[in-house]
Amino acid sequence: MRLGFIGLGAMGRPMAGHLLRGGHELSVFARRAEAAAPLVDAGACACASPAAVARNADVVFTIVTSNADVEQLTLGDDGIAQGAAPGSVVIDMSTIAPSVARRIAQGLAARGVDMLDAPVSGGTAGAAAATLSIMVGGKATVLDRMRPLFDLLGKTVVHVGDNGAGQVAKACNQMIMVSVIEAVAEAIHLANAAGVDARRVREALLGGSAQSRVLDLFGGRMVARDFRPGVEARLHHKDFGLVLREAVDLGAPLPISAQVWQQLNALMGREMAHDDTASLLRVLELTDAGGSQN
Amino acid sequence: MRLGFIGLGAMGRPMAGHLLRGGHELSVFARRAEAAAPLVDAGACACASPAAVARNADVVFTIVTSNADVEQLTLGDDGIAQGAAPGSVVIDMSTIAPSVARRIAQGLAARGVDMLDAPVSGGTAGAAAATLSIMVGGKATVLDRMRPLFDLLGKTVVHVGDNGAGQVAKACNQMIMVSVIEAVAEAIHLANAAGVDARRVREALLGGSAQSRVLDLFGGRMVARDFRPGVEARLHHKDFGLVLREAVDLGAPLPISAQVWQQLNALMGREMAHDDTASLLRVLELTDAGGSQN
Repeated sequence: MRLGFIGLGAMGRPMAGHLLRGGHELSVFARRAEAAAPLVDAGACACASPAAVARNADVVFTIVTSNADVEQLTLGDDGIAQGAAPGSVVIDMSTIAPSVARRIAQGLAARGVDMLDAPVSGGTAGAAAATLSIMVGGKATVLDRMRPLFDLLGKTVVHVGDNGAGQVAKACNQMIMVSVIEAVAEAIHLANAAGVDARRVREALLGGSAQSRVLDLFGGRMVARDFRPGVEARLHHKDFGLVLREAVDLGAPLPISAQVWQQLNALMGREMAHDDTASLLRVLELTDAGGSQN
Repeated sequence: MRLGFIGLGAMGRPMAGHLLRGGHELSVFARRAEAAAPLVDAGACACASPAAVARNADVVFTIVTSNADVEQLTLGDDGIAQGAAPGSVVIDMSTIAPSVARRIAQGLAARGVDMLDAPVSGGTAGAAAATLSIMVGGKATVLDRMRPLFDLLGKTVVHVGDNGAGQVAKACNQMIMVSVIEAVAEAIHLANAAGVDARRVREALLGGSAQSRVLDLFGGRMVARDFRPGVEARLHHKDFGLVLREAVDLGAPLPISAQVWQQLNALMGREMAHDDTASLLRVLELTDAGGSQN
């Protein structure tokens, strides 16, 4: 199939590589030419604009950072909508607001282009290993046609509902994941304060009802005091802005998510924005009478 | 070995049964004789007091609800300390304050009796299946001698540290577990508010970075709207009292744990105390403009 890919960052680059190795023609666009170079070397075609990518492709993937980025890429000047043929498909894998995903889907539908919102969970490791979990909003019939492509990128592909539903699921994912990171940070902070070896606490808890992927991965980073990113905390901070905005729009009370957002705010104000979100432990330590341990 | 067991509730009764079937002599004490009846039928000896149990046993297990219960059973009138021979061992598997566990260990040590604090995670299902996770505080040499007994009750047995450390680990376990229940409740509440099928959201999230045992089990109860207990919410409310008291004593800030405690408080005031902690979802719904869904 003729595919396009826009957004060749830490997530997008390995994902585009999987599609290319899957035997598809691939056109790419990157604001910085050097981001596209490894894919061009592997056989992809570099285009001058999102519209040009769309002209070369039946299906265009996008994975970028913000609401505004996705709107610009799809509906803006020289955007995908200006190049895409009726019957083609846009798959946006960015994490953006459900309302923006719905608006873009409507804008594309007006040109006869189908859109799926298909944000992912699993991080850069999941992108590299093609083990992402993919949460899809949009028409089931479109998803069915695209499923062979999704299978090149992830191992769990769930149709959540209509356009926007994929982004709602992703909001739920981020709420839970970062709230659990904070809960694990608080537990490790309590263990440290009590003079108990947090490594052994984590080990004991991994076998019981507090088990989670976060306790394993982020808890491991906390007890090793390794705060190099995985995913940079500033991206989770951005995601929480989307989650809480959605909650405000819906009038849904989310008391601990709101508190977790404040902890992420404290982290952003402390120059840990580019570190791992395991740094939520250091936020707790900074507010201690004794000050930081690290 | 000659064993004693005190506290034949939903957790203790199956645990005592495993010890008995493990080929050990078992003496039991229950305030209500009918609680002991199935074990007596299976060959256990019913005693008139904790002191009498201790006189018949080399190792006495206790698993009851409160700090005061454990202190009374061990150091009170007709308590274990009054019957236990020097060199015998008390294993308290209750969830109590670390400071109380340390005080009881000291009181017993004065009589030449060793004590382990060994609270468990895994609930009534884990007790029945002998798959509990056991967090042990006390001397490593004593744990080594007791390990064959623990192996009859659980599958993960971790020596966390000195007396009290097992209870600190359990506090960490409860903090994380109930905070995750609240986070899952908030995510499901957001999905419901957005008109998205929460069952599919849960399914999608179980494959990604928000995966946890809580999302599977308690998330499943929430989407099925099955609020029958598992563990009654009032017991988690009690546990959070211990956690936050410990945090206050240590001067450790725990912002989301404190907020989760408030959500549990709201649940206690709404006659859901004997329901499952999945009812935290209903607390969110009660604070909605639209009122309760159930």
